[in-house]
Amino acid sequence: MGGDHGPSVVVPAALKQLDREPELRIILVGDREVLERELKSCGRLGDDRLRVHHASQKVEMDEPPAQALRNKKDSSMRVAINLVKQGEAGACVSAGNTGALMATARYVLKTLPGVDRPAIITALPTITGHTHVLDLGANVDCSAEHLFQFAVMGSVLVAAVDGNARPRVGLLNIGEEAIKGNEQVKEAATLLSRSDAVNYIGYVEGDDIYKGSADVVVCDGFVGNVALKTSEGVARMISHFMRQEFTRNWLTRIAGLLALPVLRAFRHRVDPRRYNGASLVGLQGIVVKSHGSADELSFANAIQVARREAQKNVPERISHQLSSLLLERRAV
Amino acid sequence: MGGDHGPSVVVPAALKQLDREPELRIILVGDREVLERELKSCGRLGDDRLRVHHASQKVEMDEPPAQALRNKKDSSMRVAINLVKQGEAGACVSAGNTGALMATARYVLKTLPGVDRPAIITALPTITGHTHVLDLGANVDCSAEHLFQFAVMGSVLVAAVDGNARPRVGLLNIGEEAIKGNEQVKEAATLLSRSDAVNYIGYVEGDDIYKGSADVVVCDGFVGNVALKTSEGVARMISHFMRQEFTRNWLTRIAGLLALPVLRAFRHRVDPRRYNGASLVGLQGIVVKSHGSADELSFANAIQVARREAQKNVPERISHQLSSLLLERRAV
Repeated sequence: MGGDHGPSVVVPAALKQLDREPELRIILVGDREVLERELKSCGRLGDDRLRVHHASQKVEMDEPPAQALRNKKDSSMRVAINLVKQGEAGACVSAGNTGALMATARYVLKTLPGVDRPAIITALPTITGHTHVLDLGANVDCSAEHLFQFAVMGSVLVAAVDGNARPRVGLLNIGEEAIKGNEQVKEAATLLSRSDAVNYIGYVEGDDIYKGSADVVVCDGFVGNVALKTSEGVARMISHFMRQEFTRNWLTRIAGLLALPVLRAFRHRVDPRRYNGASLVGLQGIVVKSHGSADELSFANAIQVARREAQKNVPERISHQLSSLLLERRAV
Repeated sequence: MGGDHGPSVVVPAALKQLDREPELRIILVGDREVLERELKSCGRLGDDRLRVHHASQKVEMDEPPAQALRNKKDSSMRVAINLVKQGEAGACVSAGNTGALMATARYVLKTLPGVDRPAIITALPTITGHTHVLDLGANVDCSAEHLFQFAVMGSVLVAAVDGNARPRVGLLNIGEEAIKGNEQVKEAATLLSRSDAVNYIGYVEGDDIYKGSADVVVCDGFVGNVALKTSEGVARMISHFMRQEFTRNWLTRIAGLLALPVLRAFRHRVDPRRYNGASLVGLQGIVVKSHGSADELSFANAIQVARREAQKNVPERISHQLSSLLLERRAV
């Protein structure tokens, strides 16, 4: 029921993803009447891989997380996460209020043993393919130990979903020239260098994210959120300028028409919708957050992210890796 | 003598800028022999608005700042900053080692009264024009008071160089949805809301930088540096993809040729060289840092940044604003 567009996007996106993945089954959680109306208008009432689960409430996009947690025990968000907890669903996907989603997921599912704080991770495009960045805003202040745990979680997730046995993990830091980083980052670097749990490649800088220098980029949630939003801002400005230049006069418009197939191919490669779907990692269950403004294609991608993690049993793998780390530390 | 290319870029850039600005005079500081050879090869030995000031040493790009400060008392960097201190030069421009430049500038020029820490500020393009962001890496950990001072310095600088009487100042923060920011940012917001010294407009997010929502964006040096480098990374990836798509086959190459004037106009608008030149603010003198990899056009722009600040007497204006703030606080 969440996000900027609610069921009018989520329902067709779910149907699209069902068509793409023959093994997939989806439970739509929310106001039964609204959802069934939407399904009917798509002509898909009665699909046997799809069912509606009623929830009488809805978390508002600007609702304080604590309030949602206290007062919205039958919200679509809460009920969907409950289904994951009960094992009825393999994962939950939501375009709703991020803070409330994190708070509810943490409360209902609990963190994995060895995880102090869950984090938010997403894939981003690079020149050579893609990379994963975490944390993207769940934790504004992080200790070295938190950053270390993010590195382990990111590494396990990427190993599972990308089939990349030893993903290269970089720690986001600033200029080689200036004094290197803050205390937490320096200490996290020491922890990572000493551990065999991740394939730590050292510091990376902001521009390395898009060079594909690392498969996992680790940073605190404040820095990660700024990096992500700044990237969106740059990309939007560039596409704005491009549109402006191609629509300046009839000559440039003709040039734009002639270059249309190229511009389309180009746009496809940097299409942020293909990277929609950020995972809440470190929980005893899979929760994926879609961008609030997601359209059909975008939201379908978030479903795919969730499905992949469920297939690969990501929380279990993280738990396994972290418990062996805990044992190791105790042995030391 | 610094930067990736040294005098082979700096000298022609200086000459270019002299041609553009008839009132400008330039002192080239460094190895006299090298500089005169370069001038000769440009056919400009004996220009009366240009003189060479010999310096026997050079700070290496990877030299630790403390070492440069101790051992390189006759480096081109140190001597150029000395000239500013002595009033012989109105500003210093360098493409050299950032850490050493900041350390030397701080040591020789000293900070302005009321400034705890100098910061690095640069202009960045936006959809509607440009904005200024600080700090970009001089200070990795900042208190609320530091952020407040950055806001004042940025505001005064923009008011002076852009002739914008009440520049809008935003504090960089993360998502509206998540828990808002860290303690320092929240406290800085309180300080800024209470003060009349700046036209504080509230929190801005990473994507707001490029929307032009604020004329000055304030953040700590870690966050600012990551935002800047991430932006460079995104822009580089996008232009890489664009080039790839336009050179895919003969058809796309023809489309590229036909669209060339448009693509050129577009490239000009996002050309990072036009934004080269980051100022070290908060010092008793003007020092501008050029990107190490700057080419001629790029370095000439950094000279222009320095010249504009010198014309407007930016350090004096900052000092004036800060001392009236100090008086105000004492009165309270």
